[in-house]
Amino acid sequence: MSHPHPELGPPPALPEGALRIVALGGLGEIGRNMAVFEYDGRLLIVDCGVLFPDLEQPGVDLILPDFEYIRDRLDDIEAVVLTHGHEDHIGAVPYLLRERRDIPIAGSRLTLALIEAKLTEHRIQPVKREVVEGERHSFGPFDCEFLAVNHSIPDALAVAIRTPAGIVLHTGDFRMDQLPSDGRLTDLGGFARLGAEGVDLLMSDSTNAEVPGFVTSEREIGPVIDEVIRTAENRVIVASFASHIHRVQQVMDSAAKHGRKVALVGRSMVRNMGVARELGYLRVSPNLIVDSRDIEDLPPRDVVLICTGSQGEPMAALSRMANRDHSIRIAEGDTVLLASSLVPGNETAVNKVINGLSRWGARVVHKGNAKVHVSGHAAAGELLYVLNMTRPSNFMPVHGEWRHLRAHAKLAALTGVPEDHIVIAEDGVVVDLVDGRARIVGAVPAGYVYVDGTSVGDITDFALKDRRILGEEGFVSIVIVIDTATGKLAAPPEIHARGSGIDATGFEEVLPQVERALQENAADGVVDIQQARRVVRRTVGRWVSDSYRRRPMIIPVVVEV
Amino acid sequence: MSHPHPELGPPPALPEGALRIVALGGLGEIGRNMAVFEYDGRLLIVDCGVLFPDLEQPGVDLILPDFEYIRDRLDDIEAVVLTHGHEDHIGAVPYLLRERRDIPIAGSRLTLALIEAKLTEHRIQPVKREVVEGERHSFGPFDCEFLAVNHSIPDALAVAIRTPAGIVLHTGDFRMDQLPSDGRLTDLGGFARLGAEGVDLLMSDSTNAEVPGFVTSEREIGPVIDEVIRTAENRVIVASFASHIHRVQQVMDSAAKHGRKVALVGRSMVRNMGVARELGYLRVSPNLIVDSRDIEDLPPRDVVLICTGSQGEPMAALSRMANRDHSIRIAEGDTVLLASSLVPGNETAVNKVINGLSRWGARVVHKGNAKVHVSGHAAAGELLYVLNMTRPSNFMPVHGEWRHLRAHAKLAALTGVPEDHIVIAEDGVVVDLVDGRARIVGAVPAGYVYVDGTSVGDITDFALKDRRILGEEGFVSIVIVIDTATGKLAAPPEIHARGSGIDATGFEEVLPQVERALQENAADGVVDIQQARRVVRRTVGRWVSDSYRRRPMIIPVVVEV
Repeated sequence: MSHPHPELGPPPALPEGALRIVALGGLGEIGRNMAVFEYDGRLLIVDCGVLFPDLEQPGVDLILPDFEYIRDRLDDIEAVVLTHGHEDHIGAVPYLLRERRDIPIAGSRLTLALIEAKLTEHRIQPVKREVVEGERHSFGPFDCEFLAVNHSIPDALAVAIRTPAGIVLHTGDFRMDQLPSDGRLTDLGGFARLGAEGVDLLMSDSTNAEVPGFVTSEREIGPVIDEVIRTAENRVIVASFASHIHRVQQVMDSAAKHGRKVALVGRSMVRNMGVARELGYLRVSPNLIVDSRDIEDLPPRDVVLICTGSQGEPMAALSRMANRDHSIRIAEGDTVLLASSLVPGNETAVNKVINGLSRWGARVVHKGNAKVHVSGHAAAGELLYVLNMTRPSNFMPVHGEWRHLRAHAKLAALTGVPEDHIVIAEDGVVVDLVDGRARIVGAVPAGYVYVDGTSVGDITDFALKDRRILGEEGFVSIVIVIDTATGKLAAPPEIHARGSGIDATGFEEVLPQVERALQENAADGVVDIQQARRVVRRTVGRWVSDSYRRRPMIIPVVVEV
Repeated sequence: MSHPHPELGPPPALPEGALRIVALGGLGEIGRNMAVFEYDGRLLIVDCGVLFPDLEQPGVDLILPDFEYIRDRLDDIEAVVLTHGHEDHIGAVPYLLRERRDIPIAGSRLTLALIEAKLTEHRIQPVKREVVEGERHSFGPFDCEFLAVNHSIPDALAVAIRTPAGIVLHTGDFRMDQLPSDGRLTDLGGFARLGAEGVDLLMSDSTNAEVPGFVTSEREIGPVIDEVIRTAENRVIVASFASHIHRVQQVMDSAAKHGRKVALVGRSMVRNMGVARELGYLRVSPNLIVDSRDIEDLPPRDVVLICTGSQGEPMAALSRMANRDHSIRIAEGDTVLLASSLVPGNETAVNKVINGLSRWGARVVHKGNAKVHVSGHAAAGELLYVLNMTRPSNFMPVHGEWRHLRAHAKLAALTGVPEDHIVIAEDGVVVDLVDGRARIVGAVPAGYVYVDGTSVGDITDFALKDRRILGEEGFVSIVIVIDTATGKLAAPPEIHARGSGIDATGFEEVLPQVERALQENAADGVVDIQQARRVVRRTVGRWVSDSYRRRPMIIPVVVEV
């Protein structure tokens, strides 16, 4: 990612008594949230999540924060504090623990259970520190107080970090639902108490800072979902996040009420709901759940499927149903319920899924045509409450794209935080809290680290640029065989092309040009290999550009025999 | 595009006295609108537009309707009727006229002027038939009555096509603005008159059929834009469609009022506004316009730029500004106004543009945070008026993706059109109007025809599939040189890879495996070329899959010397 602070160099040494904050993810993007706090040579990490790739990162599975900044200092890490169990907050933990297995992982009961289930797949047994809201725990010099926040997953926490440099309140992700289904409110009273004590820096969730007003209560969603399930003619297929336990609970309650069985589809959905049920966060009536392989035996009107894929992920069950590439064949009378928000960047993919499902005759209910989802993030009107309650000396908007960070900064200014005490930083920007004042002092690398197949970091931005060119224009490869004994061409050049739209007729036109150009550049018939590559690239490049106005990747291959 | 009516075969011969309707574009998609009407062996075409590619068609410039269905019958075409001057209705005309230059082009004055300006670039002089609302024109057996409709471009028309088979009313694109800025209303009275006479088939714009209620009047936009321009600190950059004359008029009026100069940026914007100004559709005060190259000489607060790129098109000026890849460098204090709707499929691209602009400090005003655009298409509440006024015997929703067509069909059913008189067709589906009843009778090919660079139709779905694989996984190419004299390998195999994330270390691992596999499969050392390709593909494919869990394109290249 290019840098809006291009003038920033490496940070100076951290002054004594100061706190340093470096976000390695989550600033200028929605995802891979990770903030590194440093005091007196020790480090505390808040969250360690993944970012899901968009169309600019073709073929990539996941994007991690770049651990380079902390790689030489793994032993200085006191703990990783996880605010809640969403992938964009915990997903990169396995990759961090590969570098040092015994970093203590602190979090609430559910959060720890979810990360533990995930780590089992990576064959890692974490060192856990379970925390509860209201408690204070010390991790080296970091005295952490945990506060309850309401979010779209149970058991989410904010954390107030006390060091001699001051109090930093990091909200994590939160919303302000005043009638939450589990009764667990965001601890605004706790925020006020900290405000009275003096919050030196507030780091607050910016995801919905552009959305005016207030987020509807989760409680209003239940009746809408119930009505959809009650009136559905045949199968109901609900797509949601694999971690949205409250929403799955609502769907299960409705299904039970209307005499339908529920099947969970998708590995992460099955795993997470297993964890939630075991810990008592999800209550499932007896005989409600059936195996997804058995649903074909039930009448369509007795079935509710709960699956992932609400973001249009191409390999998820829902996309495959939309493309008729799944054993569940969508038919007239089926109802599909997208009970989720739309993560920015996924609109196009989700639109395709809705169209695919509509084509086969499904009724598609989504947040555009029914109140079947509320956001998990506080909107502008609610963010003002937090700003007014905590009255921070300094403010740093976190968790959001640039548009969200700027909108949140504006809200802070409206509540009276002086503009020069508001720090808009992006990933890698180093912020020091010195003598009660937060300032940008430098920057460290915080680029994307790509997970592709089994490899981490092998795929570079360079390879992705190649993929983009190949994906838009294809390639033309020209093979030249040179006889090492004579230095001459051992055979006529050969040409191969894929994805370029250039066919055999074109090849017949250009090959003689290539051969002629090679001969013209050969002294006494001896072909210079480096020059041959240049000649081939130039000759073919010009020809493609003139004849087709295209720019495929041109790859000269020289073989010596 | 796959087919939801897979059972449909070629249509039977058209019965005498019947009308046949085949949409070659615009059904199941937003764009490349084109409907072919056939009566008594003669053809009438309504609209002939392009579709803009999305991310599933990498590298493609434009998508045309497939003219195959009419290619052998070009001489039967009486005329192409253009309902209005938007690209998705006129953009494919140059490509159709390449096949037969003298097809008469009928349309309103502005529409003809816009297509003529476009055809000049293609060096084609069209045969024009100018029409005016209220007039009736015969094109062979097709008696066409034109009716005014209001849309986001002036001079738009609906067309009622009378043949002995009945009356078909095709609305074109329209909205129902009851206080339009140019006073030109959609002719609902005309629709009612036709309804009284008996509309046998209504084909009506479905774009906004999912949007409940009514579209705000264009009149309410002006004051909002005026306020944005009045209060802007520095430059104002307005992005709009290159054909949105009303919107450009509003921006110019505001600029003039607040003492700012206006520069038009982008070839299509300059061309279309030139046409509109010449014909009197755009009124420009003297000395208002400056050349975009001269704006750097003016104080930022005296400038309004009007450019294209409101859909996030990567090569348009606005995207390049967001990426700092444009001579206009966005800075703190600049205001960017996205005065346009969001065409489905472009959400992700537009989000990226907004973030890029925000990062550099611009205030971005868009339909998400201010009322700066209204849709050009009637919403559900307004579509009901048209259905109730025309009371059609048969209904066929047009211009929309599946979700829109289905929503519009549901509206028709609510107004009393019998379900079995509602025809949901997609591109290529053949609908016959026989004895007052519209029925699906078959299907013809209506796939995508890709324009890429200078070529039309060279890029196939096959090449695009190659591009997608190359774009997601890159490729690995292995060159084998065989000595024709001996049938043996003339040199060790060579390997090249791009975009695959596999490096030299990997190559060293697999090359000996390839050589070994080739030797093992060679009888007496003689390598069979076909088999060599298979062996290479299998050996390398397995190795990549096992070592990296990836699936790059694997290309064996065999050269004989």
